[in-house]
Amino acid sequence: MISVDEALKIVLEHAQPLGAEEIGLRECLCRFLADDVHAIDPLPPFPASIKDGYAVIAADGAGNRLVLGDSTAGSVPKGVVTSGFCVRINTGAPLPVGADSVVQVEDTILVREEDDGRTEVEIKIMVAPKRGQDIRPVGSDIAKGEKVLEKSQKIGPSELGILATVGAARVTCYRLPVVGVMSTGNELVEPDEALQEGKIRDSNRTTLIAQLLEHGFPVVDLGVADDTVEALLTKLTESLRKCDVIVTSGGVSMGDKDLLKHVLTDLNADLKFGRVFMKPGKPTAFATLDEGRKLFFGLPGNPVSAVVTCNLYVIPALNKMAGNPSPKRTMIRARIADKIHLDPRPEYHRALLTWHPDDPIPQAISTGNQMSSRLLSMRTANALLVLPPKTEVLQTIESGALVDAMIIGRL
Amino acid sequence: MISVDEALKIVLEHAQPLGAEEIGLRECLCRFLADDVHAIDPLPPFPASIKDGYAVIAADGAGNRLVLGDSTAGSVPKGVVTSGFCVRINTGAPLPVGADSVVQVEDTILVREEDDGRTEVEIKIMVAPKRGQDIRPVGSDIAKGEKVLEKSQKIGPSELGILATVGAARVTCYRLPVVGVMSTGNELVEPDEALQEGKIRDSNRTTLIAQLLEHGFPVVDLGVADDTVEALLTKLTESLRKCDVIVTSGGVSMGDKDLLKHVLTDLNADLKFGRVFMKPGKPTAFATLDEGRKLFFGLPGNPVSAVVTCNLYVIPALNKMAGNPSPKRTMIRARIADKIHLDPRPEYHRALLTWHPDDPIPQAISTGNQMSSRLLSMRTANALLVLPPKTEVLQTIESGALVDAMIIGRL
Repeated sequence: MISVDEALKIVLEHAQPLGAEEIGLRECLCRFLADDVHAIDPLPPFPASIKDGYAVIAADGAGNRLVLGDSTAGSVPKGVVTSGFCVRINTGAPLPVGADSVVQVEDTILVREEDDGRTEVEIKIMVAPKRGQDIRPVGSDIAKGEKVLEKSQKIGPSELGILATVGAARVTCYRLPVVGVMSTGNELVEPDEALQEGKIRDSNRTTLIAQLLEHGFPVVDLGVADDTVEALLTKLTESLRKCDVIVTSGGVSMGDKDLLKHVLTDLNADLKFGRVFMKPGKPTAFATLDEGRKLFFGLPGNPVSAVVTCNLYVIPALNKMAGNPSPKRTMIRARIADKIHLDPRPEYHRALLTWHPDDPIPQAISTGNQMSSRLLSMRTANALLVLPPKTEVLQTIESGALVDAMIIGRL
Repeated sequence: MISVDEALKIVLEHAQPLGAEEIGLRECLCRFLADDVHAIDPLPPFPASIKDGYAVIAADGAGNRLVLGDSTAGSVPKGVVTSGFCVRINTGAPLPVGADSVVQVEDTILVREEDDGRTEVEIKIMVAPKRGQDIRPVGSDIAKGEKVLEKSQKIGPSELGILATVGAARVTCYRLPVVGVMSTGNELVEPDEALQEGKIRDSNRTTLIAQLLEHGFPVVDLGVADDTVEALLTKLTESLRKCDVIVTSGGVSMGDKDLLKHVLTDLNADLKFGRVFMKPGKPTAFATLDEGRKLFFGLPGNPVSAVVTCNLYVIPALNKMAGNPSPKRTMIRARIADKIHLDPRPEYHRALLTWHPDDPIPQAISTGNQMSSRLLSMRTANALLVLPPKTEVLQTIESGALVDAMIIGRL
């Protein structure tokens, strides 16, 4: 049996970024850039006012100005500002030709207006302006040709906004891996079916699909495969045509009904490992197919084991294939609320992290009974505590001690 | 001007959970339960084997047994185990009638098989079994009638799996608020349009829509409204028919082209606040419409201000409407990497949090120039540092000091 670290190393060695593709701006959310992005125009593309006020010539100093007209956002200001004149200007509007300063409206008083009471004729500037005051020069936010986003950057909402700003309507991103999720077992029925004798409802497929969707990966629901070599072989062969990665649960322990390993041999799979020294999740299998181009994860059938191993191995592999330069899960330190008895295997213990005002380190509360069939122990969990194996010397971790915690949910 | 805390308090007072609706299992991801959920069946629904091995009568002790047949997962075991007999059993398979213990295959040896070499006739048990050994009793994971999920629980992947397990194919959840997102300003063109004189590309709508979608809220893209009372009034009136919440950006500062406030008056809106003592985001407006049934957020037009105020006010309001019992953003403590000069207003400073092996407290690295028009300062940010306003005594925060950090991205 190999360690979790070795297993993850093997998985990440075989998960390689997929090719690039050009997609529309709004499809890019949560993708990774396969190329740098440069600005084709400067931002602002024109000298823009930061305030509502008047565009003036600074050298004229304080005092009266005749108002030539308006410059509003989205329009092209008419006329040229010359000495003694000004143009009323709005926030974001282009500075008219000739002006080199903006005086905010609060620093002016109205001297004279037209009889209609709506058109300003003359104003007085109370504070002498400085050249360039309250103007965003051309390119002050983004210079023309500037690299605004780097290859491998994740595109979140703000990065998407940057792409919109620079007019990147088509963007070159890494392709997302398509993941097929399959359950195996004659005992499984769908969630909306009534239970017949000997049957249980399949929860793993629902959980795994949701977990992958939550991370932004496209998923194909491959349904439940019967426990026969023929059924498994047919389903897997067909699935490999449309998926980059296949994730199954069940069928990988030592029983004679655990046929997946026979089927993998028939498919010329290259089995990289078949069990890992961890709890839960010992019977986790990983193989490559199709000369290394496709990945296969055989996760355990126990619901908690399936979720934990998906977090530990599948998500990092998919992250890497999608071009994420830091594919591993975020690990932080947490203070355990209650004493924990260690297991002979390294344990991934489900917990809820919360931050309290009097402690900069989060508190980790165990979700209770950690039996691997007990999906209730995943309820409310947003982290997996990484606990060392029990030794002669170290049998328990005491309340208040710090442990590593892998973030698995949104905080 | 009110404080951020006062503003958020007002927003949350007027954001009330929407009604409940019954939806299909797979639509529930990221929703909040409007009712407790109970298990209709126990799990396991039958006494199930934890190992591959033999179902026996423990009182028979160690020694030989005749093999009656198989119990495999998903089948109904035939026959009754009586003294001296056993049934071969797989992990997850139902315990046959009469048996009260499972002996793992590793603790047995094969004594005799049929001539076909495939059917076991007699085995020998090497270790005397204990009653109940390696059996999951009925209801040991989930008891019949047990409350498996509580009202107000968020449905993540594992909770979805629990719902699948208990056969909750239809689930009563709080309705999600439908959010309309609109930009205002004659200067705005779409991201795929070439820039004409005086124009800039609209990035706020793209950013805000992505931010709301990333949080799981359904969004209606309301496009760009021209800066006229008629255009705004028509668009808002129409939008209120299909949206619970309207989010606009731009058009809320003091200029004479900032018409939104006039339009809100025409719509009988109840303006709750129009500016907040913060940086960025001072010109943030919040109103209720339709006798308090709909919410209106007028966010600033500057890209960073729009993102920050969406995080501070809009997301918590939507969380509460969607039934989230803890609608506020998660706040943690972080250690700032470099000295920060404080602003006269409380500042929400964009930063990247990272955890290092030698420090349990995350390090916060500023994303640089924090000018509110500069969307580049949001690049890579996963947190907003909450900085106090500058005072005579406190002008800077030194490197290594702890500050509050609001989590805005996935860690």
